[in-house]
Amino acid sequence: MNIDVIISADHIKESQIKDKVVVVIDMLRATSVITTAIANGCNKVIPVLTVEDAFKLASKDRNSVILGGERRALKIDGFDLSNSPLEYTKEIVQNKDVIITTTNGTKAINGCKGAYKIYIGAMINGRAVAQLVKKENKDIVFLNAGTNGQFSMDDFICAGYMIDCITENHEVQLTDIAKTARYIYENNKDIDSYIKEARHYSVIKSLSLESDLAYCMKKDILSVVPEFKNGEIKNAL
Amino acid sequence: MNIDVIISADHIKESQIKDKVVVVIDMLRATSVITTAIANGCNKVIPVLTVEDAFKLASKDRNSVILGGERRALKIDGFDLSNSPLEYTKEIVQNKDVIITTTNGTKAINGCKGAYKIYIGAMINGRAVAQLVKKENKDIVFLNAGTNGQFSMDDFICAGYMIDCITENHEVQLTDIAKTARYIYENNKDIDSYIKEARHYSVIKSLSLESDLAYCMKKDILSVVPEFKNGEIKNAL
Repeated sequence: MNIDVIISADHIKESQIKDKVVVVIDMLRATSVITTAIANGCNKVIPVLTVEDAFKLASKDRNSVILGGERRALKIDGFDLSNSPLEYTKEIVQNKDVIITTTNGTKAINGCKGAYKIYIGAMINGRAVAQLVKKENKDIVFLNAGTNGQFSMDDFICAGYMIDCITENHEVQLTDIAKTARYIYENNKDIDSYIKEARHYSVIKSLSLESDLAYCMKKDILSVVPEFKNGEIKNAL
Repeated sequence: MNIDVIISADHIKESQIKDKVVVVIDMLRATSVITTAIANGCNKVIPVLTVEDAFKLASKDRNSVILGGERRALKIDGFDLSNSPLEYTKEIVQNKDVIITTTNGTKAINGCKGAYKIYIGAMINGRAVAQLVKKENKDIVFLNAGTNGQFSMDDFICAGYMIDCITENHEVQLTDIAKTARYIYENNKDIDSYIKEARHYSVIKSLSLESDLAYCMKKDILSVVPEFKNGEIKNAL
């Protein structure tokens, strides 16, 4: 079993993910939102690339769906929810379809077709993801959504956390970048000491979304593993 | 002033390097070789992409040139020198043109046209490079050659060392990946503790080239800064 990391959605090469288990990470905040919505009982999450696609899809039955996501980290006009995972409560999402569009995360999810399986990971379900992908016994690629096509510290340490979970009592080959991600996690197990330097962390903090940051940095508070298949995300467990 | 890092020659985007000061790093071993050859008084180094190009260029005046480089880390048949910096002594290279072709390094050097300036860096001249690029007062991109298109730990910590030198008493903006490279260096100032985990380090070690590794990991033993311009590399100082 080999483990690799891709540093942003702009860096995906088909050969790197073909027939592999891909875990998409956008911990601040798209994959934390998706994981929370799935854990709180939504029917499914449908990630779409554009605001127009979201409205079009919602128009078929507007009352049964929740529109969520962001542009420039802010709620989109006409949408029900922003990209704050704290808004995706059981009361709001249960038995609903959630249609979501975000700047980096949904692009990454839609960009990894050709993979053997596509899972959605975040700090909040890191260990659950690690346990599942370990069982697949296939090569694993952590696809970091990154920020605007660039490497993002938050996604990198999140990949490092899951690699650390997988490599506990388990023999695997790590690429140099996978080793580096694990190194970063091992030396910053509190997460905060490393992640607080991330540019994207500052952006979210500047919008007074500290409670989102605190939530997204919690480890393993949820045990679902969202899986993207045929355009939809549902719990794989 | 902004500082960024590109993780391999396969990840170059023209927009990321256009009009910027680029420092190409392939510390194990191409840029250590080039720096050593320049410091030992060769006329210039000419990096070429293929073995055929090297022979063709050399054929014009075979006695005045030195052919150096590697394929699969080994000397090329018919070449004078391998990719070991220790072979590029004053006795051998002084007043000669050195034509070099390597798997990753020469590809990176030739891939960054469009940059404002292109310098060649390694641990052995790290501080000299840092001091020069700081004076340019332009955005800086560390272009890691990487290994076969992949992130390589050796080049990453080398970029981190130069970023650390630049940011001593100097206000700069670092991207997330530049911050991470500096973090890795700051926590592994001996270099060895991090670099020994690199896949490429193992390859070189398996070929009994420990003396090359020891040499390439020394900091600041040379004060030249090779610059690539119009197809040739000469000392910029």
